[in-house]
Amino acid sequence: MNELETPAPAGREGRRGGRAARKVARAEAAVQAQASAPPYITRQIPLTELCGEEGLDIIEANAETVLEEIGIDFKDDPDVLAIWKDAGADVDGERVRFPKGLAKSLIATAPAEYTQHARNPGRSVQIGGDHTVFVPVYGPPFVHDLDQGRRYGTIQDFQNFVKLAYMAPAIHHSGGTVCEPVDIPVNKRHLDMVYAHMKYSDKPFMGSVTAPERAADTVAMAEILFGKDFVDRNAVCTSLINVNSPMTYDSIMLGALKNYTAANQAVIVTPFIMSGAMAPVSAAGTLAQALAEAMAGIALTQLIRPGAPVVFGLFSAALSMQSGAPTFGTPEPTLVLSAAAQLARRMKLPFRSGGSLCASKLPDSQAAYESANSVMPAMLSGVNFVLHSAGWLEGGLASSYEKFIMDCDQLGMLQTLAKGYDFTDNGQAMDAIREVGPGGHYLGCEHTQANFETAFYRSNVADNNSFEQWSAEGSFDQSQRANGIWKQMLNDYEAPALDAAKDEELLAFIEQKKASMEDSWS
Amino acid sequence: MNELETPAPAGREGRRGGRAARKVARAEAAVQAQASAPPYITRQIPLTELCGEEGLDIIEANAETVLEEIGIDFKDDPDVLAIWKDAGADVDGERVRFPKGLAKSLIATAPAEYTQHARNPGRSVQIGGDHTVFVPVYGPPFVHDLDQGRRYGTIQDFQNFVKLAYMAPAIHHSGGTVCEPVDIPVNKRHLDMVYAHMKYSDKPFMGSVTAPERAADTVAMAEILFGKDFVDRNAVCTSLINVNSPMTYDSIMLGALKNYTAANQAVIVTPFIMSGAMAPVSAAGTLAQALAEAMAGIALTQLIRPGAPVVFGLFSAALSMQSGAPTFGTPEPTLVLSAAAQLARRMKLPFRSGGSLCASKLPDSQAAYESANSVMPAMLSGVNFVLHSAGWLEGGLASSYEKFIMDCDQLGMLQTLAKGYDFTDNGQAMDAIREVGPGGHYLGCEHTQANFETAFYRSNVADNNSFEQWSAEGSFDQSQRANGIWKQMLNDYEAPALDAAKDEELLAFIEQKKASMEDSWS
Repeated sequence: MNELETPAPAGREGRRGGRAARKVARAEAAVQAQASAPPYITRQIPLTELCGEEGLDIIEANAETVLEEIGIDFKDDPDVLAIWKDAGADVDGERVRFPKGLAKSLIATAPAEYTQHARNPGRSVQIGGDHTVFVPVYGPPFVHDLDQGRRYGTIQDFQNFVKLAYMAPAIHHSGGTVCEPVDIPVNKRHLDMVYAHMKYSDKPFMGSVTAPERAADTVAMAEILFGKDFVDRNAVCTSLINVNSPMTYDSIMLGALKNYTAANQAVIVTPFIMSGAMAPVSAAGTLAQALAEAMAGIALTQLIRPGAPVVFGLFSAALSMQSGAPTFGTPEPTLVLSAAAQLARRMKLPFRSGGSLCASKLPDSQAAYESANSVMPAMLSGVNFVLHSAGWLEGGLASSYEKFIMDCDQLGMLQTLAKGYDFTDNGQAMDAIREVGPGGHYLGCEHTQANFETAFYRSNVADNNSFEQWSAEGSFDQSQRANGIWKQMLNDYEAPALDAAKDEELLAFIEQKKASMEDSWS
Repeated sequence: MNELETPAPAGREGRRGGRAARKVARAEAAVQAQASAPPYITRQIPLTELCGEEGLDIIEANAETVLEEIGIDFKDDPDVLAIWKDAGADVDGERVRFPKGLAKSLIATAPAEYTQHARNPGRSVQIGGDHTVFVPVYGPPFVHDLDQGRRYGTIQDFQNFVKLAYMAPAIHHSGGTVCEPVDIPVNKRHLDMVYAHMKYSDKPFMGSVTAPERAADTVAMAEILFGKDFVDRNAVCTSLINVNSPMTYDSIMLGALKNYTAANQAVIVTPFIMSGAMAPVSAAGTLAQALAEAMAGIALTQLIRPGAPVVFGLFSAALSMQSGAPTFGTPEPTLVLSAAAQLARRMKLPFRSGGSLCASKLPDSQAAYESANSVMPAMLSGVNFVLHSAGWLEGGLASSYEKFIMDCDQLGMLQTLAKGYDFTDNGQAMDAIREVGPGGHYLGCEHTQANFETAFYRSNVADNNSFEQWSAEGSFDQSQRANGIWKQMLNDYEAPALDAAKDEELLAFIEQKKASMEDSWS
């Protein structure tokens, strides 16, 4: 169960045949696990809804008040201000106020769910409705592992996380900025990042949003991979547009939003909120403001291209009122998340939130409690796009190799939980109860023999052995077992086949783009 | 935030005045925290229900089939068999079969909720309905801490856990066998255990069930503490009766059940199930069998004393089909728990399940993920009596000092989550949103200033500081911080006042009982 065997150092001799054979066997097992893994979750259990309907009514009414009375700033983008003016909004400088009901009526053209296509059609995901897609961590400048501790991320780390996400059966998506590759110039790294998603994985991915032209580069590369016509008709990337809460959109995010939306590519409009700093310290206040912000951005997408796919996103954490530091896995953001998912369903929009969030600096018990407290409510509440599902450490400042493995195990459990109950005759198991009877034992009975292979979720990183056996094996904690697993996975990794002509065209595009600019490091 | 100061070694000199003053200050703060802590949770959020009504119908019908066709064994207790015969059941040797509907109709006299009285009336708990009571770990023969590792529990450890539970604001109950004091003879240790709950805490407690006469001793000691009449009219202990699943009650558990029920004291009738060993490998099969088992025992309590308080309990874990070891925090038992809570509500009975369960041998990330996966669904699903809420390690073989602290922090978060949303004007915070406006900051605004003290749950063991500050403070993981906290708590502990005459009477009772028997170690 515990994959503690680590790869041999490079150049080491001996037992090559055995090792190579084991590698092939593991690779085949990994391919099988991948092939049998569902591309996304379709929930079979009822939704957990923590907020009453009256509460949701209040939040919606307050959001309309924010839109109408206070308004939203759209900074440094006359084009967007003109769009709003044409749509009937009240534009005063960069402040836009919305007649009651305007944003809501515009949102009506957004699809309730959409397919994000992967280059492997079997890995395309359905975003919205009863579906949940688990997506890796996004954005950390640092990486962390038990061997080297915390350090800046590189393109090698980036590729490693893409490979791990590709191999993890419970991860449905390759994600976006799985870590910042700080060894590549800021103005060029998006090319290597998008290429890594296209080359080292066949799962769907997210595009660059750090500048409008980088969004355009992402679309151009997607057109090489999928074909221009296909991209115009289908979503092949889902990209993250953060609101500068409170109530502000900046020109970079607006530029990326416009480029993706015009290209019929999905964006996630996400108020990014630490309650106490970017929103009030209360759940109801945070929700009203966030809903207003998201409605404005989502309405804008539908003015740019009616029917373009768009996701209502919300990143919510609470600020420590003592230290000013963000906290994660605490109860107040769970209340925000659950109500926001309900509000999204009222608007018939896909919803993004959640993730395996934590403030801990180590993949320790704090990291695990906080992550479970974040990601389980996300699944139970029906979040459709769960960003930061695996690997998040230290408030999102670090991508952790060990935590990635541990989080993936948790996602597998949630995937099983979402399947719910089996009420077939086999699931009811009445014959087994009759066969065993009072005082008996089920281990050997026919029903157990027929079902034991698939009866229970199997963790690859938890240790359930006896204290004695666990001690004999070295008394490792879970993060130490995870350390062995990610190394083994990277050792066993084999890239999914990519059409050679497309690969060449992608590389040529990147080379030409890189040659066209000086390196910029800021 | 991090209470890393540990008590000085005994006999160490110097700075006594300062230390004593700090101890008094901490003790006062602890008393205040206790005084303001609610004695139990009354949930303000909707229930999470994972099983559909049709599924519950199937389980109920299958349970009736188990009761009618297969039956339940009541071992070595002719008295109970006679009770069943008189009630109209079909008694064949020790096998009892129940005409359809008999058990269900008998259960109808059991109260939907009851008060378990504490010697401090402010600490009495309401068990059932919308209420949740968090109760410490029960049963481990070992204890574990970071300093000494794993070792057998002693009466000193037992008293320590009683003291910690007394001091923890999120723990509502003193529990029962918080660890086995293996340094006391088996036939006498229940006296010291019950006394420890009475002496070192003023929260409600559980009684001994390891022999019928030990249940009687518990009741006798409760009569000294509360008065004989009071005990006959009120529940002052809630005790754990495990079913020997599948479908068997043994004479020890039946004897304890009879003694407590006849004395009008509450019992928790609990099928103890590792699916795959004591029940089928499927959730629906486990639920049908467990429901039948529990219904039989609960019906028996109502035949013995109609109206006596009783709790439907279910301990459910899944057996690893690879190693044969129990696993915890996995999805299948969560499905069992949630549906069982729904079945209990259909029967209008209080429900016990859940807890911070784990298989890990250390208070590491495995322990934390598994515990969060167990205890959060318990709270969301409306479990009324959450046994093993804090301290459980290694599949229940060890009571962990550090995990006790970490789990209590989680319980505090769940307590906050259960409060739900604040939709008062202050909770809606519209004035704050108006005051701050687009591009502003909430840290200094009036609403934040007025609410920051209570706005967010504050952990005493999580570290939310910057990487740099955390590194400067020693790069501790959460379990290391917890180590400092439990030592500080025990150092600061002050016993709640106990009437001297009652204390003397209790001690005399124990002395007389102990003198009346030879020591027995098995």
